[in-house]
Amino acid sequence: MYKETNKRSIVKGITWRLVATTTTIVIVYVFFDRLDLAIAAGAIETTLKIGLFWLHERAWFKVRWGKKRIEPFNLWFTGLPLSGKTTIADKVYDELEKIDIPLERIDSKDIRDLIPDIGYEREDRNRHMHRIGNLICTLQNNSISTVASFVSPYKESRRAIRDMVKNNVIVYVKADVETCKSRDYKGAYAKALAGEFKNFPGVDEVYEEPQRAEIVINTETTSVDEAASLIVKYIKKHYVK
Amino acid sequence: MYKETNKRSIVKGITWRLVATTTTIVIVYVFFDRLDLAIAAGAIETTLKIGLFWLHERAWFKVRWGKKRIEPFNLWFTGLPLSGKTTIADKVYDELEKIDIPLERIDSKDIRDLIPDIGYEREDRNRHMHRIGNLICTLQNNSISTVASFVSPYKESRRAIRDMVKNNVIVYVKADVETCKSRDYKGAYAKALAGEFKNFPGVDEVYEEPQRAEIVINTETTSVDEAASLIVKYIKKHYVK
Repeated sequence: MYKETNKRSIVKGITWRLVATTTTIVIVYVFFDRLDLAIAAGAIETTLKIGLFWLHERAWFKVRWGKKRIEPFNLWFTGLPLSGKTTIADKVYDELEKIDIPLERIDSKDIRDLIPDIGYEREDRNRHMHRIGNLICTLQNNSISTVASFVSPYKESRRAIRDMVKNNVIVYVKADVETCKSRDYKGAYAKALAGEFKNFPGVDEVYEEPQRAEIVINTETTSVDEAASLIVKYIKKHYVK
Repeated sequence: MYKETNKRSIVKGITWRLVATTTTIVIVYVFFDRLDLAIAAGAIETTLKIGLFWLHERAWFKVRWGKKRIEPFNLWFTGLPLSGKTTIADKVYDELEKIDIPLERIDSKDIRDLIPDIGYEREDRNRHMHRIGNLICTLQNNSISTVASFVSPYKESRRAIRDMVKNNVIVYVKADVETCKSRDYKGAYAKALAGEFKNFPGVDEVYEEPQRAEIVINTETTSVDEAASLIVKYIKKHYVK
């Protein structure tokens, strides 16, 4: 959150003065046809009003009226492990940062510093999702939008998130299990296939495809940049006014 | 976070006009000694400049320069169970809300929706504290200040919080164990004494008194209202400019 510095009020006062004094000089000149007096009036006005404008600006900072809370959204990326969620979400986050909205990135890989994973059973995962929903709510209460990426394989946990948060936008990052396996640079699928990882969506656990995603990205036909620009456009259209 | 509405810009334009037009009329009158023409000039100026002011305001919203991030703080209430932390912290939160800073309340009793407690051993508690520190950091990155109340009996976990967050203010809510026991409306001390609760600070677990608390509240001699107003004064002096 920002507040306006004194300097900003002063410089705003000066730029406004340029606009305003020119108008005054023109008006006085039209009325009296005396350019010298018109300019003199403009000069005195300038000196006086820069100070008055500054006072007027600072007085308005005390007034709460007419300020509107920024409405937050939640971009929720779901998809199989290694489908490309994180890459696209990172790109989208970078793009959205540029337009100066309060924004937080939440990803499964760094959420553990905040919320410990306490199991990989369906119920544990749902409870974990519920906590993440709570975190998003806390941020949203402070007008902070979120870019979240989680496998979130179950319908009911995505549904829970949708019920908890405001302006939820589900982005389904669609990729074939075979494609994901071929991208397996971390060896996660290999470990899951070998039975080292249990309850791994796409291997020995289901991934329930979202039926009502606001945005579907088919990673076989859409590049990361294309996907990101599509999503940013959607957000700008619906949530950034 | 707030943004300024169009309406606010317009009304600001009108109040400014009252100040500015009066000045113009006075200046023109002083120069030309013709009140009728001075008023006519003022009238035309008014019409023209309300529109120009509005455009000028909206143009400045696109400019980032001169806006300063609000610096967040963390008020950290520590003390024995039932020492009165939550009551004082709630009161302080209510008072600080009024001065319109982005603020979040964090209390041990409702943090579990967000971060599960996974044990009451010293190490578990410290890990839990570390997660709460992470939450505060996330909020602070978005300029949100926090009012947190946790027993936080160990030096090292309070130290960890201090190292993680910005502008940490420790409030030690001091109360005798006997006093806390006598306030035991929830029966927590009774259960701890009966051995039902383990690792209960003040009963079978230590509470390490903070040595470097910014504020110490002695609940035997200070009322809740007095304590709250003391703390709010401290915050206003150091962190709200």
